[in-house]
Amino acid sequence: MKISARNRLKGKIVEVVKGTTTAHVRIDIGGSIVTSSITNEAVDELGLKVGNTAYAVVKASDVMVAID
Amino acid sequence: MKISARNRLKGKIVEVVKGTTTAHVRIDIGGSIVTSSITNEAVDELGLKVGNTAYAVVKASDVMVAID
Amino acid sequence: MKISARNRLKGKIVEVVKGTTTAHVRIDIGGSIVTSSITNEAVDELGLKVGNTAYAVVKASDVMVAID
Amino acid sequence: MKISARNRLKGKIVEVVKGTTTAHVRIDIGGSIVTSSITNEAVDELGLKVGNTAYAVVKASDVMVAID
Amino acid sequence: MKISARNRLKGKIVEVVKGTTTAHVRIDIGGSIVTSSITNEAVDELGLKVGNTAYAVVKASDVMVAID
Amino acid sequence: MKISARNRLKGKIVEVVKGTTTAHVRIDIGGSIVTSSITNEAVDELGLKVGNTAYAVVKASDVMVAID
Repeated sequence: MKISARNRLKGKIVEVVKGTTTAHVRIDIGGSIVTSSITNEAVDELGLKVGNTAYAVVKASDVMVAID
Repeated sequence: MKISARNRLKGKIVEVVKGTTTAHVRIDIGGSIVTSSITNEAVDELGLKVGNTAYAVVKASDVMVAID
Repeated sequence: MKISARNRLKGKIVEVVKGTTTAHVRIDIGGSIVTSSITNEAVDELGLKVGNTAYAVVKASDVMVAID
Repeated sequence: MKISARNRLKGKIVEVVKGTTTAHVRIDIGGSIVTSSITNEAVDELGLKVGNTAYAVVKASDVMVAID
Repeated sequence: MKISARNRLKGKIVEVVKGTTTAHVRIDIGGSIVTSSITNEAVDELGLKVGNTAYAVVKASDVMVAID
Repeated sequence: MKISARNRLKGKIVEVVKGTTTAHVRIDIGGSIVTSSITNEAVDELGLKVGNTAYAVVKASDVMVAID
Protein backbone atom coordinates (compact mmCIF):
# COMPACT_ATOMS: atom_id res chain seq x y z
CA MET A 1 0.00 0.00 0.00
CA LYS A 2 1.22 3.50 -0.90
CA ILE A 3 -0.31 6.28 1.20
CA SER A 4 -0.72 10.04 0.66
CA ALA A 5 0.66 10.93 4.12
CA ARG A 6 3.78 13.03 3.46
CA ASN A 7 5.77 12.01 6.52
CA ARG A 8 7.24 8.56 7.14
CA LEU A 9 10.12 8.49 9.60
CA LYS A 10 11.94 5.16 9.99
CA GLY A 11 13.14 4.00 13.40
CA LYS A 12 13.15 1.30 16.03
CA ILE A 13 10.37 0.67 18.56
CA VAL A 14 11.65 1.34 22.10
CA GLU A 15 8.43 1.03 24.10
CA VAL A 16 4.91 -0.39 23.73
CA VAL A 17 2.46 0.39 26.56
CA LYS A 18 -1.09 -0.88 26.26
CA GLY A 19 -3.93 0.85 28.11
CA THR A 20 -7.50 -0.45 28.32
CA THR A 21 -8.30 0.68 24.74
CA THR A 22 -5.42 3.01 23.72
CA ALA A 23 -1.74 2.08 23.41
CA HIS A 24 1.37 4.28 23.33
CA VAL A 25 4.18 3.23 21.01
CA ARG A 26 7.53 5.00 21.17
CA ILE A 27 9.89 4.91 18.19
CA ASP A 28 13.53 6.05 18.22
CA ILE A 29 14.06 8.06 15.02
CA GLY A 30 17.80 8.70 14.84
CA GLY A 31 18.01 9.60 18.52
CA SER A 32 14.70 11.48 18.82
CA ILE A 33 11.81 9.62 20.46
CA VAL A 34 8.46 9.90 18.66
CA THR A 35 5.35 8.96 20.66
CA SER A 36 2.30 7.53 18.89
CA SER A 37 -1.10 6.96 20.43
CA ILE A 38 -2.98 4.20 18.58
CA THR A 39 -5.55 1.49 19.35
CA ASN A 40 -4.54 -1.73 21.14
CA GLU A 41 -5.99 -3.56 18.12
CA ALA A 42 -3.49 -1.90 15.78
CA VAL A 43 -0.62 -2.95 18.06
CA ASP A 44 -1.83 -6.57 17.93
CA GLU A 45 -2.61 -6.61 14.20
CA LEU A 46 0.83 -5.21 13.26
CA GLY A 47 2.60 -7.28 15.95
CA LEU A 48 4.45 -4.19 17.22
CA LYS A 49 7.24 -5.16 19.65
CA VAL A 50 10.25 -3.43 21.21
CA GLY A 51 13.25 -3.75 18.90
CA ASN A 52 11.21 -3.95 15.67
CA THR A 53 11.80 -1.54 12.81
CA ALA A 54 8.78 0.72 12.26
CA TYR A 55 7.76 4.02 10.70
CA ALA A 56 6.07 6.98 12.36
CA VAL A 57 3.57 8.21 9.74
CA VAL A 58 2.00 11.68 9.93
CA LYS A 59 -0.30 13.56 7.53
CA ALA A 60 1.14 16.99 6.62
CA SER A 61 -1.95 18.80 7.93
CA ASP A 62 -1.20 17.35 11.41
CA VAL A 63 2.30 18.86 11.59
CA MET A 64 2.69 22.24 13.30
CA VAL A 65 5.80 24.40 13.17
CA ALA A 66 7.38 26.05 16.21
CA ILE A 67 10.34 28.36 16.79
CA ASP A 68 12.28 29.17 19.98
CA MET B 1 4.97 28.39 26.30
CA LYS B 2 5.19 24.66 27.13
CA ILE B 3 2.81 22.44 25.17
CA SER B 4 1.37 18.95 25.77
CA ALA B 5 2.23 17.74 22.23
CA ARG B 6 4.65 14.83 22.73
CA ASN B 7 6.66 15.26 19.54
CA ARG B 8 9.02 18.14 18.79
CA LEU B 9 11.64 17.42 16.16
CA LYS B 10 14.30 20.09 15.63
CA GLY B 11 15.58 20.89 12.16
CA LYS B 12 16.21 23.49 9.49
CA ILE B 13 13.59 24.91 7.14
CA VAL B 14 14.39 23.93 3.53
CA GLU B 15 11.27 25.17 1.72
CA VAL B 16 8.34 27.53 2.29
CA VAL B 17 5.59 27.53 -0.38
CA LYS B 18 2.57 29.75 0.11
CA GLY B 19 -0.75 28.94 -1.53
CA THR B 20 -3.80 31.20 -1.53
CA THR B 21 -4.66 30.30 2.10
CA THR B 22 -2.51 27.24 2.95
CA ALA B 23 1.30 27.07 3.04
CA HIS B 24 3.63 24.09 2.95
CA VAL B 25 6.78 24.26 5.07
CA ARG B 26 9.47 21.59 4.73
CA ILE B 27 11.92 20.99 7.57
CA ASP B 28 15.07 18.86 7.33
CA ILE B 29 15.19 16.73 10.50
CA GLY B 30 18.59 15.04 10.48
CA GLY B 31 18.31 14.16 6.79
CA SER B 32 14.59 13.31 6.71
CA ILE B 33 12.26 15.94 5.23
CA VAL B 34 9.09 16.62 7.22
CA THR B 35 6.25 18.42 5.40
CA SER B 36 3.87 20.65 7.34
CA SER B 37 0.67 22.19 6.01
CA ILE B 38 -0.21 25.36 7.95
CA THR B 39 -1.93 28.70 7.32
CA ASN B 40 -0.16 31.51 5.44
CA GLU B 41 -0.83 33.66 8.53
CA ALA B 42 1.23 31.33 10.74
CA VAL B 43 4.14 31.53 8.27
CA ASP B 44 4.01 35.34 8.44
CA GLU B 45 3.54 35.57 12.21
CA LEU B 46 6.46 33.25 12.95
CA GLY B 47 8.60 34.72 10.14
CA LEU B 48 9.38 31.25 8.78
CA LYS B 49 12.18 31.39 6.18
CA VAL B 50 14.48 28.90 4.46
CA GLY B 51 17.58 28.33 6.58
CA ASN B 52 15.88 29.07 9.93
CA THR B 53 15.92 26.56 12.77
CA ALA B 54 12.42 25.27 13.51
CA TYR B 55 10.60 22.39 15.16
CA ALA B 56 8.02 20.05 13.63
CA VAL B 57 5.45 19.56 16.41
CA VAL B 58 2.94 16.68 16.35
CA LYS B 59 0.34 15.52 18.89
CA ALA B 60 0.79 11.82 19.76
CA SER B 61 -2.75 10.98 18.64
CA ASP B 62 -1.84 12.18 15.11
CA VAL B 63 1.05 9.74 14.73
CA MET B 64 0.34 6.41 13.04
CA VAL B 65 2.72 3.43 12.99
CA ALA B 66 3.56 1.44 9.86
CA ILE B 67 5.70 -1.62 9.13
CA ASP B 68 7.14 -2.93 5.85
CA MET C 1 3.48 -1.08 3.95
CA LYS C 2 0.98 -2.04 6.67
CA ILE C 3 -0.38 0.90 8.68
CA SER C 4 -2.01 1.19 12.12
CA ALA C 5 -4.92 3.34 10.81
CA ARG C 6 -8.07 1.30 11.54
CA ASN C 7 -10.17 2.51 8.60
CA ARG C 8 -9.50 1.72 4.96
CA LEU C 9 -12.50 2.05 2.68
CA LYS C 10 -12.07 0.89 -0.92
CA GLY C 11 -13.65 2.80 -3.77
CA LYS C 12 -13.18 4.56 -7.09
CA ILE C 13 -11.87 8.12 -7.53
CA VAL C 14 -14.61 10.34 -9.00
CA GLU C 15 -12.96 13.77 -8.80
CA VAL C 16 -9.49 15.28 -8.35
CA VAL C 17 -9.34 19.08 -7.91
CA LYS C 18 -5.95 20.69 -7.37
CA GLY C 19 -5.67 24.04 -5.59
CA THR C 20 -2.47 26.07 -5.29
CA THR C 21 -1.09 23.78 -2.54
CA THR C 22 -4.05 21.63 -1.40
CA ALA C 23 -6.03 19.14 -3.51
CA HIS C 24 -9.46 17.61 -2.96
CA VAL C 25 -9.92 13.99 -3.98
CA ARG C 26 -13.40 12.43 -3.96
CA ILE C 27 -13.81 8.66 -3.73
CA ASP C 28 -17.06 6.76 -4.32
CA ILE C 29 -17.29 4.14 -1.54
CA GLY C 30 -20.25 1.93 -2.45
CA GLY C 31 -22.39 4.92 -3.38
CA SER C 32 -21.24 7.31 -0.63
CA ILE C 33 -18.79 10.04 -1.66
CA VAL C 34 -15.83 10.54 0.69
CA THR C 35 -13.88 13.81 0.35
CA SER C 36 -10.17 13.92 1.17
CA SER C 37 -8.05 17.03 1.45
CA ILE C 38 -4.38 16.22 0.75
CA THR C 39 -1.31 17.95 -0.73
CA ASN C 40 -0.92 18.39 -4.50
CA GLU C 41 2.40 16.53 -4.12
CA ALA C 42 0.61 13.43 -2.80
CA VAL C 43 -1.76 13.49 -5.79
CA ASP C 44 1.21 13.60 -8.16
CA GLU C 45 3.31 11.01 -6.33
CA LEU C 46 0.45 8.46 -6.19
CA GLY C 47 -0.75 9.35 -9.70
CA LEU C 48 -4.34 9.75 -8.50
CA LYS C 49 -6.78 10.01 -11.44
CA VAL C 50 -10.54 9.78 -11.92
CA GLY C 51 -11.55 6.15 -12.42
CA ASN C 52 -8.67 4.67 -10.40
CA THR C 53 -9.30 2.34 -7.49
CA ALA C 54 -8.21 3.94 -4.20
CA TYR C 55 -8.73 3.70 -0.44
CA ALA C 56 -9.89 6.41 1.94
CA VAL C 57 -7.74 5.88 5.05
CA VAL C 58 -8.68 7.40 8.43
CA LYS C 59 -7.12 7.02 11.90
CA ALA C 60 -9.74 5.91 14.48
CA SER C 61 -9.10 9.00 16.65
CA ASP C 62 -10.22 11.18 13.71
CA VAL C 63 -13.65 9.54 13.42
CA MET C 64 -16.55 11.15 15.29
CA VAL C 65 -19.96 9.56 15.83
CA ALA C 66 -23.27 11.37 15.25
CA ILE C 67 -26.92 10.45 15.67
CA ASP C 68 -30.07 12.02 14.20
CA MET D 1 -26.97 21.21 13.88
CA LYS D 2 -25.36 21.26 10.42
CA ILE D 3 -21.59 20.71 10.41
CA SER D 4 -18.83 21.55 7.91
CA ALA D 5 -17.30 18.04 8.08
CA ARG D 6 -17.57 16.66 4.52
CA ASN D 7 -17.95 13.00 5.38
CA ARG D 8 -20.96 11.44 7.08
CA LEU D 9 -21.37 7.72 6.54
CA LYS D 10 -24.56 6.13 7.84
CA GLY D 11 -24.53 2.69 9.45
CA LYS D 12 -25.38 0.54 12.44
CA ILE D 13 -23.33 0.32 15.65
CA VAL D 14 -21.90 -3.20 16.03
CA GLU D 15 -19.63 -2.72 19.07
CA VAL D 16 -19.11 -0.26 21.92
CA VAL D 17 -16.06 -0.87 24.15
CA LYS D 18 -15.39 1.56 26.97
CA GLY D 19 -11.86 2.00 28.35
CA THR D 20 -10.97 4.04 31.42
CA THR D 21 -11.34 7.35 29.54
CA THR D 22 -11.48 6.41 25.83
CA ALA D 23 -14.13 4.30 24.09
CA HIS D 24 -14.07 2.48 20.76
CA VAL D 25 -17.26 2.45 18.73
CA ARG D 26 -17.53 0.27 15.62
CA ILE D 27 -20.08 1.08 12.94
CA ASP D 28 -21.03 -1.19 10.05
CA ILE D 29 -21.21 1.01 6.93
CA GLY D 30 -22.66 -1.17 4.19
CA GLY D 31 -20.47 -4.10 5.16
CA SER D 32 -17.28 -2.18 6.01
CA ILE D 33 -16.51 -1.69 9.70
CA VAL D 34 -15.45 1.82 10.70
CA THR D 35 -13.72 2.21 14.08
CA SER D 36 -14.07 5.45 16.03
CA SER D 37 -12.12 6.39 19.14
CA ILE D 38 -14.08 8.90 21.25
CA THR D 39 -14.50 9.81 24.92
CA ASN D 40 -16.60 7.67 27.28
CA GLU D 41 -18.61 10.84 28.00
CA ALA D 42 -19.64 11.13 24.34
CA VAL D 43 -20.84 7.51 24.36
CA ASP D 44 -22.99 8.23 27.43
CA GLU D 45 -24.30 11.59 26.22
CA LEU D 46 -25.38 10.21 22.84
CA GLY D 47 -26.58 6.91 24.36
CA LEU D 48 -24.63 4.89 21.80
CA LYS D 49 -25.64 1.21 21.86
CA VAL D 50 -25.16 -1.83 19.63
CA GLY D 51 -27.91 -1.93 17.02
CA ASN D 52 -28.48 1.83 16.90
CA THR D 53 -28.25 3.76 13.66
CA ALA D 54 -25.31 6.19 13.71
CA TYR D 55 -23.04 8.18 11.40
CA ALA D 56 -19.25 8.09 11.20
CA VAL D 57 -18.26 11.74 10.68
CA VAL D 58 -14.81 12.73 9.40
CA LYS D 59 -13.33 16.12 8.44
CA ALA D 60 -11.90 16.05 4.88
CA SER D 61 -8.43 17.06 6.12
CA ASP D 62 -8.32 13.86 8.22
CA VAL D 63 -8.85 11.56 5.22
CA MET D 64 -5.77 10.14 3.52
CA VAL D 65 -5.73 8.35 0.17
CA ALA D 66 -3.92 5.07 -0.48
CA ILE D 67 -3.41 2.84 -3.51
CA ASP D 68 -2.33 -0.82 -3.76
CA MET E 1 -27.75 15.89 14.30
CA LYS E 2 -26.00 15.32 17.65
CA ILE E 3 -22.23 14.76 17.43
CA SER E 4 -19.68 13.14 19.75
CA ALA E 5 -17.22 16.09 19.46
CA ARG E 6 -16.87 17.44 23.02
CA ASN E 7 -16.22 21.08 22.13
CA ARG E 8 -18.79 23.46 20.62
CA LEU E 9 -18.05 27.14 21.15
CA LYS E 10 -20.74 29.58 20.04
CA GLY E 11 -19.82 32.89 18.42
CA LYS E 12 -20.20 35.21 15.47
CA ILE E 13 -18.40 34.87 12.13
CA VAL E 14 -16.03 37.83 11.61
CA GLU E 15 -14.21 36.76 8.45
CA VAL E 16 -14.58 34.28 5.58
CA VAL E 17 -11.63 34.01 3.17
CA LYS E 18 -11.85 31.51 0.33
CA GLY E 19 -8.69 30.10 -1.26
CA THR E 20 -8.62 27.92 -4.37
CA THR E 21 -9.80 24.83 -2.45
CA THR E 22 -9.43 25.73 1.27
CA ALA E 23 -11.26 28.51 3.13
CA HIS E 24 -10.46 30.21 6.45
CA VAL E 25 -13.39 31.13 8.68
CA ARG E 26 -12.82 33.25 11.78
CA ILE E 27 -15.33 33.18 14.63
CA ASP E 28 -15.40 35.61 17.57
CA ILE E 29 -16.00 33.51 20.70
CA GLY E 30 -16.60 35.99 23.52
CA GLY E 31 -13.72 38.19 22.39
CA SER E 32 -11.27 35.45 21.35
CA ILE E 33 -10.91 34.79 17.62
CA VAL E 34 -10.96 31.13 16.59
CA THR E 35 -9.63 30.29 13.10
CA SER E 36 -11.02 27.31 11.20
CA SER E 37 -9.63 25.88 8.00
CA ILE E 38 -12.35 24.05 6.03
CA THR E 39 -13.24 23.32 2.39
CA ASN E 40 -14.77 26.01 0.16
CA GLU E 41 -17.64 23.56 -0.40
CA ALA E 42 -18.50 23.53 3.31
CA VAL E 43 -18.60 27.34 3.34
CA ASP E 44 -21.05 27.29 0.42
CA GLU E 45 -23.20 24.44 1.73
CA LEU E 46 -23.63 26.03 5.17
CA GLY E 47 -23.95 29.55 3.70
CA LEU E 48 -21.32 30.93 6.12
CA LYS E 49 -21.24 34.73 6.07
CA VAL E 50 -19.77 37.50 8.24
CA GLY E 51 -22.21 38.37 11.03
CA ASN E 52 -23.84 34.91 11.21
CA THR E 53 -23.96 32.95 14.45
CA ALA E 54 -21.84 29.80 14.24
CA TYR E 55 -20.09 27.22 16.40
CA ALA E 56 -16.43 26.22 16.37
CA VAL E 57 -16.50 22.44 16.85
CA VAL E 58 -13.40 20.48 17.92
CA LYS E 59 -12.90 16.79 18.82
CA ALA E 60 -11.28 16.41 22.29
CA SER E 61 -8.34 14.46 20.85
CA ASP E 62 -7.46 17.53 18.73
CA VAL E 63 -7.11 19.87 21.73
CA MET E 64 -3.64 20.33 23.22
CA VAL E 65 -2.90 22.00 26.54
CA ALA E 66 -0.18 24.62 27.06
CA ILE E 67 1.13 26.59 30.04
CA ASP E 68 3.22 29.78 30.18
CA MET F 1 8.36 28.45 22.11
CA LYS F 2 6.08 30.09 19.53
CA ILE F 3 3.82 27.70 17.65
CA SER F 4 1.96 27.90 14.32
CA ALA F 5 -1.35 26.66 15.82
CA ARG F 6 -3.82 29.52 15.28
CA ASN F 7 -5.97 28.94 18.34
CA ARG F 8 -4.87 29.47 21.94
CA LEU F 9 -7.73 29.99 24.39
CA LYS F 10 -6.75 30.95 27.95
CA GLY F 11 -8.64 29.55 30.94
CA LYS F 12 -8.49 27.70 34.22
CA ILE F 13 -8.22 23.91 34.62
CA VAL F 14 -11.38 22.54 36.26
CA GLU F 15 -10.79 18.79 35.99
CA VAL F 16 -7.94 16.35 35.34
CA VAL F 17 -8.91 12.67 34.92
CA LYS F 18 -6.17 10.17 34.19
CA GLY F 19 -6.97 6.89 32.43
CA THR F 20 -4.51 4.04 31.94
CA THR F 21 -2.71 5.85 29.10
CA THR F 22 -4.99 8.77 28.12
CA ALA F 23 -6.03 11.71 30.33
CA HIS F 24 -8.91 14.16 29.98
CA VAL F 25 -8.25 17.76 30.99
CA ARG F 26 -11.14 20.24 31.19
CA ILE F 27 -10.46 23.98 30.95
CA ASP F 28 -12.99 26.71 31.70
CA ILE F 29 -12.64 29.31 28.93
CA GLY F 30 -14.77 32.26 30.02
CA GLY F 31 -17.63 30.00 31.08
CA SER F 32 -17.37 27.40 28.30
CA ILE F 33 -15.75 24.08 29.19
CA VAL F 34 -13.20 22.78 26.68
CA THR F 35 -12.26 19.09 26.92
CA SER F 36 -8.80 17.94 25.88
CA SER F 37 -7.68 14.35 25.49
CA ILE F 38 -3.89 14.07 25.95
CA THR F 39 -1.36 11.52 27.25
CA ASN F 40 -0.88 10.97 30.99
CA GLU F 41 2.79 11.81 30.41
CA ALA F 42 1.90 15.31 29.17
CA VAL F 43 -0.21 15.88 32.30
CA ASP F 44 2.76 14.92 34.49
CA GLU F 45 5.39 16.81 32.50
CA LEU F 46 3.37 20.06 32.51
CA GLY F 47 2.20 19.51 36.11
CA LEU F 48 -1.43 20.16 35.12
CA LYS F 49 -3.64 20.60 38.21
CA VAL F 50 -7.14 21.90 38.93
CA GLY F 51 -7.04 25.65 39.45
CA ASN F 52 -3.99 26.27 37.24
CA THR F 53 -4.11 28.71 34.34
CA ALA F 54 -3.72 26.91 31.00
CA TYR F 55 -4.39 27.32 27.29
CA ALA F 56 -6.42 25.08 25.02
CA VAL F 57 -4.41 24.99 21.77
CA VAL F 58 -5.95 23.82 18.47
CA LYS F 59 -4.58 23.77 14.90
CA ALA F 60 -6.92 25.61 12.48
CA SER F 61 -7.33 22.50 10.31
CA ASP F 62 -8.84 20.68 13.33
CA VAL F 63 -11.64 23.25 13.80
CA MET F 64 -14.98 22.53 12.14
CA VAL F 65 -17.83 25.03 11.80
CA ALA F 66 -21.46 24.27 12.61
CA ILE F 67 -24.73 26.18 12.42
CA ASP F 68 -28.09 25.55 14.09
